[in-house]
Amino acid sequence: MITVTFLGFGNVNHHLCTALHKKQQVSVKQIYSRNNIRLSSEIDSIPFTRQLSQLQPADVYIIGIPDDAIASFSEALPFRDKLVVHTSGGVTMETLSEKNRKGVFYPLQTFSKERAVNLKTTPICIEAGNEKDRNLLQKLGVVLSHQVVSISSEERAKLHLAAVFVNNFVNHLYAIGADITSQSGVPFELLKPLIAETARKIEDLSPSEAQTGPARRKDLNTIEKHVHLLHDSRYKELYKLLTESIQKSYGKKL
Amino acid sequence: MITVTFLGFGNVNHHLCTALHKKQQVSVKQIYSRNNIRLSSEIDSIPFTRQLSQLQPADVYIIGIPDDAIASFSEALPFRDKLVVHTSGGVTMETLSEKNRKGVFYPLQTFSKERAVNLKTTPICIEAGNEKDRNLLQKLGVVLSHQVVSISSEERAKLHLAAVFVNNFVNHLYAIGADITSQSGVPFELLKPLIAETARKIEDLSPSEAQTGPARRKDLNTIEKHVHLLHDSRYKELYKLLTESIQKSYGKKL
Repeated sequence: MITVTFLGFGNVNHHLCTALHKKQQVSVKQIYSRNNIRLSSEIDSIPFTRQLSQLQPADVYIIGIPDDAIASFSEALPFRDKLVVHTSGGVTMETLSEKNRKGVFYPLQTFSKERAVNLKTTPICIEAGNEKDRNLLQKLGVVLSHQVVSISSEERAKLHLAAVFVNNFVNHLYAIGADITSQSGVPFELLKPLIAETARKIEDLSPSEAQTGPARRKDLNTIEKHVHLLHDSRYKELYKLLTESIQKSYGKKL
Repeated sequence: MITVTFLGFGNVNHHLCTALHKKQQVSVKQIYSRNNIRLSSEIDSIPFTRQLSQLQPADVYIIGIPDDAIASFSEALPFRDKLVVHTSGGVTMETLSEKNRKGVFYPLQTFSKERAVNLKTTPICIEAGNEKDRNLLQKLGVVLSHQVVSISSEERAKLHLAAVFVNNFVNHLYAIGADITSQSGVPFELLKPLIAETARKIEDLSPSEAQTGPARRKDLNTIEKHVHLLHDSRYKELYKLLTESIQKSYGKKL
């Protein structure tokens, strides 16, 4: 039985906690949050505290708070030599205070309060200061996911950067698509099967094999028409830059 | 029974032809292509010709050739007063020659030779010069898809532009993600569950509700780290422009 305490209760810790609480191999000891929060009915039997001084011993403490607060928060913990991990893609393990043993438990996924996420298929990227702690995080990871991988802080930073492109920036392009359709009175719904297929396609093809469209086939006529159709200068600039970038990618490879 | 002839045999016509040939309500009369092509075994019983003069009467002729060739090709057809449609998102119906009745049959999807696509869920956008022809295209559309919609040339141009953002540009961001991971020796595979969830998320949430990440939460520290991590000036510029664009979107709404 692995005992786990959650420190901070944003989206990531909310999802991890709800999933781990259902598992027999894990006992969630406590949830700490600076703010008073309402726990959903699935997890409202877990002891909650707003006092760091009331934290009980646990095998792993999982910090889920904003990136820039991790250093000072971990320094303020009122215990020593415990395993304290954070869940952030963009923060090195070394950022954690020396007072405790360090680790990272980073689920590579996008979490919203409103949506259940399939953690079984979510890669969990772990890192630890020693072999024994890494083994414990590995054991905790496989309780949740089919895919637990050891990733260094440096690799994780690159992975997080790539994730910003394929998740945050991709979603912003969806938002632009929604804006263009709504301005034209065409339902955004019509684009959803295309969005789904675009994502599914790269399960079989590499993104560079899957690339299609006017930029890929250097269809300058269509590109010019599109730039002309865009009224928002921000979208115009993005269209041009993304088109140039695709053309350069294929220029290189041809 | 609707009789259909395909003129040109790129990806779109290949997929439409293969799907329609299986349907009892439709008979594919002929396939024309300027080039000698090898038909897959599913459709190799359909008569093939390289001579426009050998085209037989059909209810609908579906042109699937590069956008800038549609005008002159439709003008060169050796018959009159037939229903001739193109399949292009970015070309107006009026581009077709006056010699024949005009229409558009635009499946809003991304097609590659290598992948089967579910046409049932693919919206088919139709347009025609008169009610009777529109009804015929509607009838042909519902043979293939649950969703057949009448869309004007102007609306279709906007829809096609939005499709470039959510399909071609999104796929390019996947390619950048793949490039960043491969440069760091981290498997791109790790990003695939995130990519899938990013696309699935907007089935329930609007893209603007679904937006997360450093740009959304104005996490300047992480943004600065990311720009520093990017060596390719093209990616750096895209990162900055997409980040600014997200910040402006949320600036407006807050």
